[in-house]
Amino acid sequence: MGELSNYTYAEISIGQKASYTRQVSEQDIQLFAAVSGDVNPVHLDEEFAATTQFKHRIAHGMLTGAFVSAAIALELPGPGTIYLGQSLRFRRPVLIGDRITVQLEVTEKQDKRQFVTLDCKVVNQDGDMVASGTAEVMAPGEKMNIAAPELPPISVG
Amino acid sequence: MGELSNYTYAEISIGQKASYTRQVSEQDIQLFAAVSGDVNPVHLDEEFAATTQFKHRIAHGMLTGAFVSAAIALELPGPGTIYLGQSLRFRRPVLIGDRITVQLEVTEKQDKRQFVTLDCKVVNQDGDMVASGTAEVMAPGEKMNIAAPELPPISVG
Repeated sequence: MGELSNYTYAEISIGQKASYTRQVSEQDIQLFAAVSGDVNPVHLDEEFAATTQFKHRIAHGMLTGAFVSAAIALELPGPGTIYLGQSLRFRRPVLIGDRITVQLEVTEKQDKRQFVTLDCKVVNQDGDMVASGTAEVMAPGEKMNIAAPELPPISVG
Repeated sequence: MGELSNYTYAEISIGQKASYTRQVSEQDIQLFAAVSGDVNPVHLDEEFAATTQFKHRIAHGMLTGAFVSAAIALELPGPGTIYLGQSLRFRRPVLIGDRITVQLEVTEKQDKRQFVTLDCKVVNQDGDMVASGTAEVMAPGEKMNIAAPELPPISVG
């Protein structure tokens, strides 16, 4: 990661786009289960998941929400953004190994309070839409170029 | 956790409530940063966070979203629920150590497709609302009582 930078409200224009890609690992699903407390076997137990309509373990829907929030916090507008609201429709299951891309596009600016509205589409490696929605943020007023903190090592199992 | 059980669509009534409480730890924030990729220092670096309007490290907004999704998946309707959509307004920052309670209330049922709408309020230990929104789900058709999978041990640092 190294460096994090942002777009200030003044630098943001309608139609501006950004994207953010993550590959979903088994560990991501275990960590999301630990953080949220959602230990449903449809996410964690392949044998159980095989008996469901999904046939395989699926990622938690809100893991996709976490990716959307990270796209906003890292890419557009980036650091210094205040997250005001998010809507999401979950359209298709996300499976372990899926490569998920969040596509952001600025659709509205409100000068008075520096609010920015972003259209959010989330697609998998096949281009299928897994989620979509709208984010509302307060864009940063000041330019930032900051070092990304190092996360401590995390081990599972 | 032990056992997970659900409410079927037929068992759910307008006005039905459930709640779900989690205390936010430093490790939760580190794990959420790892899962989402959002390593912004406002979440991870106390010295940096002291220079922001928040004065202290704040939890990722979507960590609250993760708690809301877990409340739905574990409590109401519980296992077998299909998550269709979620809206959230982020109203106040969540800090390390905060005890966060998600309050769900059923506001609408649509018999044709077994859709259920839930009002979602999220409050901290002082009763201040940190987030609110609406969830739409497809409620389970079948009663389930299932053993909660054990998560593998997770260590940080």
